[in-house]
Amino acid sequence: MRDAPDSLPAPTTDRAFLDDALDAADAVGFVAVGDRFDDDLRYLTRFDGPDRDYAFVRADGESVLCAPGLFEEQATREFDGTVRMDGVGDPAGVRAAEALAAFGVDAGLVLVPQSIPHDAAVHLERAGYDLRSTTAVADARLVKTDAELDCLRRVQRAAVRGMRRAETILAESRVEGDELVWEGGPLSTERLRRQVNAEFAVYGVRDAGNTVVGAGPTCADLHYTGTDVLHPGETVLLDLSPRGPHGYYGDLSRTYVVDSDGGWERRAYVAVEAALDAALDEIAPGADAADVHREAAAELAAYGFDPNADEGEAGFTHGTGHGVGVSLHEGPSLRDPVELEPGMVFTVEPGVYDPERGGVRLEELVAVTDDGHEVLHEYPRSFAPRTE
Amino acid sequence: MRDAPDSLPAPTTDRAFLDDALDAADAVGFVAVGDRFDDDLRYLTRFDGPDRDYAFVRADGESVLCAPGLFEEQATREFDGTVRMDGVGDPAGVRAAEALAAFGVDAGLVLVPQSIPHDAAVHLERAGYDLRSTTAVADARLVKTDAELDCLRRVQRAAVRGMRRAETILAESRVEGDELVWEGGPLSTERLRRQVNAEFAVYGVRDAGNTVVGAGPTCADLHYTGTDVLHPGETVLLDLSPRGPHGYYGDLSRTYVVDSDGGWERRAYVAVEAALDAALDEIAPGADAADVHREAAAELAAYGFDPNADEGEAGFTHGTGHGVGVSLHEGPSLRDPVELEPGMVFTVEPGVYDPERGGVRLEELVAVTDDGHEVLHEYPRSFAPRTE
Repeated sequence: MRDAPDSLPAPTTDRAFLDDALDAADAVGFVAVGDRFDDDLRYLTRFDGPDRDYAFVRADGESVLCAPGLFEEQATREFDGTVRMDGVGDPAGVRAAEALAAFGVDAGLVLVPQSIPHDAAVHLERAGYDLRSTTAVADARLVKTDAELDCLRRVQRAAVRGMRRAETILAESRVEGDELVWEGGPLSTERLRRQVNAEFAVYGVRDAGNTVVGAGPTCADLHYTGTDVLHPGETVLLDLSPRGPHGYYGDLSRTYVVDSDGGWERRAYVAVEAALDAALDEIAPGADAADVHREAAAELAAYGFDPNADEGEAGFTHGTGHGVGVSLHEGPSLRDPVELEPGMVFTVEPGVYDPERGGVRLEELVAVTDDGHEVLHEYPRSFAPRTE
Repeated sequence: MRDAPDSLPAPTTDRAFLDDALDAADAVGFVAVGDRFDDDLRYLTRFDGPDRDYAFVRADGESVLCAPGLFEEQATREFDGTVRMDGVGDPAGVRAAEALAAFGVDAGLVLVPQSIPHDAAVHLERAGYDLRSTTAVADARLVKTDAELDCLRRVQRAAVRGMRRAETILAESRVEGDELVWEGGPLSTERLRRQVNAEFAVYGVRDAGNTVVGAGPTCADLHYTGTDVLHPGETVLLDLSPRGPHGYYGDLSRTYVVDSDGGWERRAYVAVEAALDAALDEIAPGADAADVHREAAAELAAYGFDPNADEGEAGFTHGTGHGVGVSLHEGPSLRDPVELEPGMVFTVEPGVYDPERGGVRLEELVAVTDDGHEVLHEYPRSFAPRTE
């Protein structure tokens, strides 16, 4: 129970950036509407709500949560602003309009995320407000605070525990005929996934449905979740993205081969590891995010792999990385020309795939620091699985 | 590994109900846009997609999935319709409009769920379509097919396994001073939750962040997820809602007291169990869902508990149940005047709470059958925890 991930205090969100966005647009307020799966709302409120809509309103430098019924206690505990229960049962867009009116603004421009539910947008427009979408929240989420970094380090430590569990099982497995056997039965992608997920659970984080385990050809299918029995000599690709304290995600990938005879798998592994290190070397404040991708792609090309392969083809079929925070995928993308800043957190995950043979991906989660980068929880890399 | 929950085939969705809705509204098509957290899309497509928007289109009796980039293989595997990759990278609303145009309809009425993202709605309107919201999908989801019932039975069996784990731990715990101790350390709500979640993981289902464990006064806070040490004599309330095969949820609650001295906890338990049985007795085809709630409330009132208490007050503070399917909360609500039909699945979960003392809730997941109801995986009830 030591280092329980949820013993961390919840990060707070400095919502002054919304006031700046409102000033710049000459807008009277900001409204977000969504449910527990809306990560902007989670970031803005730190409220872990239910699977029905609620609303956040910012106006006059103050923050209001129109909380769902039966959640007043939890909202009051988690949200550092005014919890409003007026109109519980009404649509969240209606309640948001009433919360705005309570500030004395009954017309004018209101900023909203572009994905606000259509019915909420219609309710706000009917109440007399004009809507304009803003990227202010996504922009604010790009750079993490120290408290957010602590959450990310902690959940990534859980990802490492899951990976260690998987690597240990692979190292303990024995070859019988054409199959890997572990604890008396055939070892499958599904068995491995369950063991990893159980490790996450005991450590207090959720697998969030993101535990990808591929074997041989299915490694080339980036989101494979089947039940294949594992074979010696083939790639076993694990991509673990648990969700931990206060909704922050980890992300870690490793690829192992039990009883390899070298060949394609070994060459792919060496190339991917070189691409990973080349990409990591690029990361520093002021660097262009797109250069991190270009470095990885160039290194893979140098090893003879197609750096621009399409899905289903042989080569590098995806981008080198994406931001991670309260969403598993957020900014920055390493394909975009974004200037890296201290506090940005993203994955670096080159990979090469061959639908006929297998796939290799290695992934680290990194934070940009004042003078370079920090790998959020180091975990040794190895082609052959090892016990501790 | 026998009876692995994911060895079930995915249910198929008969989407003819959409054609009926289109005919009735004289509409040219139906469009849904969302991401992996949109359960209507999951139901319509059986595609378990990523955390970025994609689109489903129905027109001319045909179904199209505008799949996200990097997901063509998975979409083709999971979706029984046309997978369209045209315009990958464009907003999902734009792609949906283009998919409609490919049917030869470039104007007219399009039905959408009311929560379609606002930007998608705007893209469709700009492309020349008029939008009207429909409840057709939610209505179709009310009655489950046999394949859906199989998924629900299977995940509820996992909920039972989690509950058995929790009950066993409570039964094995020892009283030391004012605390419960298990395996050498104080037993807390968090430790109990982790053990339950690990059991889910090994059984191949996800806790989905829904494992509620309350202790004493925190049982009255319906969504409590703290880290209290458990005390003898107080209520320990477990509400388990794992997500299993093909996205279907289970839902099961029990309340235990270790080393009870009777009193409020015992009286509350007896009342809640009577209310649960009275409510279950009401369930049959043709019955009014609201009567199920009324029966439970009347029984609790007969035992002296306030059947209409507000949140934070002593008594019965919530409804008696909600539908369960690919969403944890869907129709029917047992507060609404809905005529029960065979194939409807919902929780029955009366409870009484006292913020000063504790809370008791007992919950079964039931399906309406041709001549009554089926409890989806029976699990014995007990006030004092027992080992198997």
